[in-house]
Amino acid sequence: MKLAVVGATGEVGRMMLKKLEEEAITPEEIDLFSSSRSAGSLMKFAGKSIEVRELREDSLRRDYDYVLFSAGASVSKTFAPLAASCGAVVIDNSSAFRQSEEIPLVVPEINGCLLKGYRGIVANPNCSTIQMVLSLHKIHRRFDLKTIVVSTYQAVSGAGNRGIVELERQEAGSQDQAVFVRKIHRNVVPVIGDILENSFSAEEMKMINETRKILGDSKVSIWPTTVRVPVAHGHSEAVFCETEKPFELEELKEELRASEDVVLTDERFTPVEIAGSDLVYVSRVRSFDSHRFLLWNVADNIRVGAATNAVRILKMHAGGA
Amino acid sequence: MKLAVVGATGEVGRMMLKKLEEEAITPEEIDLFSSSRSAGSLMKFAGKSIEVRELREDSLRRDYDYVLFSAGASVSKTFAPLAASCGAVVIDNSSAFRQSEEIPLVVPEINGCLLKGYRGIVANPNCSTIQMVLSLHKIHRRFDLKTIVVSTYQAVSGAGNRGIVELERQEAGSQDQAVFVRKIHRNVVPVIGDILENSFSAEEMKMINETRKILGDSKVSIWPTTVRVPVAHGHSEAVFCETEKPFELEELKEELRASEDVVLTDERFTPVEIAGSDLVYVSRVRSFDSHRFLLWNVADNIRVGAATNAVRILKMHAGGA
Repeated sequence: MKLAVVGATGEVGRMMLKKLEEEAITPEEIDLFSSSRSAGSLMKFAGKSIEVRELREDSLRRDYDYVLFSAGASVSKTFAPLAASCGAVVIDNSSAFRQSEEIPLVVPEINGCLLKGYRGIVANPNCSTIQMVLSLHKIHRRFDLKTIVVSTYQAVSGAGNRGIVELERQEAGSQDQAVFVRKIHRNVVPVIGDILENSFSAEEMKMINETRKILGDSKVSIWPTTVRVPVAHGHSEAVFCETEKPFELEELKEELRASEDVVLTDERFTPVEIAGSDLVYVSRVRSFDSHRFLLWNVADNIRVGAATNAVRILKMHAGGA
Repeated sequence: MKLAVVGATGEVGRMMLKKLEEEAITPEEIDLFSSSRSAGSLMKFAGKSIEVRELREDSLRRDYDYVLFSAGASVSKTFAPLAASCGAVVIDNSSAFRQSEEIPLVVPEINGCLLKGYRGIVANPNCSTIQMVLSLHKIHRRFDLKTIVVSTYQAVSGAGNRGIVELERQEAGSQDQAVFVRKIHRNVVPVIGDILENSFSAEEMKMINETRKILGDSKVSIWPTTVRVPVAHGHSEAVFCETEKPFELEELKEELRASEDVVLTDERFTPVEIAGSDLVYVSRVRSFDSHRFLLWNVADNIRVGAATNAVRILKMHAGGA
């Protein structure tokens, strides 16, 4: 296998390399690319030291089997089609192609079937979307979700390493503010991405559109509020759902227990407890009637919400899924 | 006016004194009570230094006009009826009497009419409830709320000064954990109060029962998730509502602009910006259809959510409302 990682020095890029190692995926050749700013730095992979190179126009004109992108939407827009045209399967962590009709948006546990025989660009969903659909997809199949209301508690690492650095600096007394629209230390900020004309944020519209695409159901009505909180790693979500078909609480729990890479638990319900894990932790499942319920979920946003999902896509595709 | 404050040294008690000063309410006599632990300390009020005394069985057997309680439910259960039986109007910030049928649960801007000619115990609602009903009551009157889904982002000061101290200590590296069920620094904790048999938390059931009582409408279906966040002052809430009657978004905004002590704003939408204010800041009002909407509200939990509401009750009652 010949593999390239674009955006290798970023928070998600580094986790992709770590996750490849954990999964014992060791390509014969691996190339790491970054912007000119990080080019020249050395990264460890599978015991070897690899020099990161600047991504240039001709960098990806090669016979890669897989190219993982995590360098932002504009880099993906320019370089992903090029890599795909040279025959690589591209797994793109940016938002560039997620809403393109012909591009599969994949959470392997849910719609990994789309990977079978597929060549080209595969889109990796948004972090907050992945952990929500992993919690809900089996419940949706059985009880038909009509409405989802979700409020998020999103870690600063979702904005990359610079998000963590900004929190750390503010904790140390700095008043500087560059990454988030408001101070984030000892604060919560209910704006992630631009506020669009309909008054929803870009992050909220991602949750709406991506959830519908992954579940393959455009009828689900989704009402998100996405909020940044002073947490380093791990997104949390308070989720309310209304179903078409009546359920028993125990039946919801059955579906959660049967969901791959999901753990139903009363124990690990906060971000600091689950950071570093590849699972979605669901707790506080509760209801007053047979058509509506609440649950709380927590997952490592850099792993489950980005790098792990990307590597799971690669692994499933490479396995001939 | 003769006045007593029980729990005067606590976070809310101290703010009650400050708010009385701000409102230029200067009783001829004022007595401050606390537990034996804080008794003997000196507090400033209206330029005078007052010694805080230990609350004892006979402390309130006097002709107080008003007694403000903020010392927890068990103290209120023991002492509030006693003070009331001696003729005082008791304004109780604890949960002890909020659900008693004969006790008014008052947010002056909403149901202050209940104070007219009333003698006895008046219950001050829970912090997270007050700011939510202040945001919603006029919309409810006009469009009839069927369902409310609310996720909270609650400051550590809601657990009193010891909540702030625990956050500060953890920020400084301490692993000690006494006030919150999990670490709160760089974390979010979706459990406030005990988890009850129905899997909802005590805080969540307060929001349900108190909102219904204040709105005078037991039919509203309320689905809360109450979450502690590492913020010192200021609770935030992501609120979703479904209405019986259709609305235009502009009509919702009209009702918000017409709501006393509520500010509709695009500017001040995070806790650090509004701490120290007596208003509820509502922002991010948005919708996709004519029966459902989302909004975000932020308010100072110790002021709007406790001390200011209590002093507003006192002021309205004393004014002969």
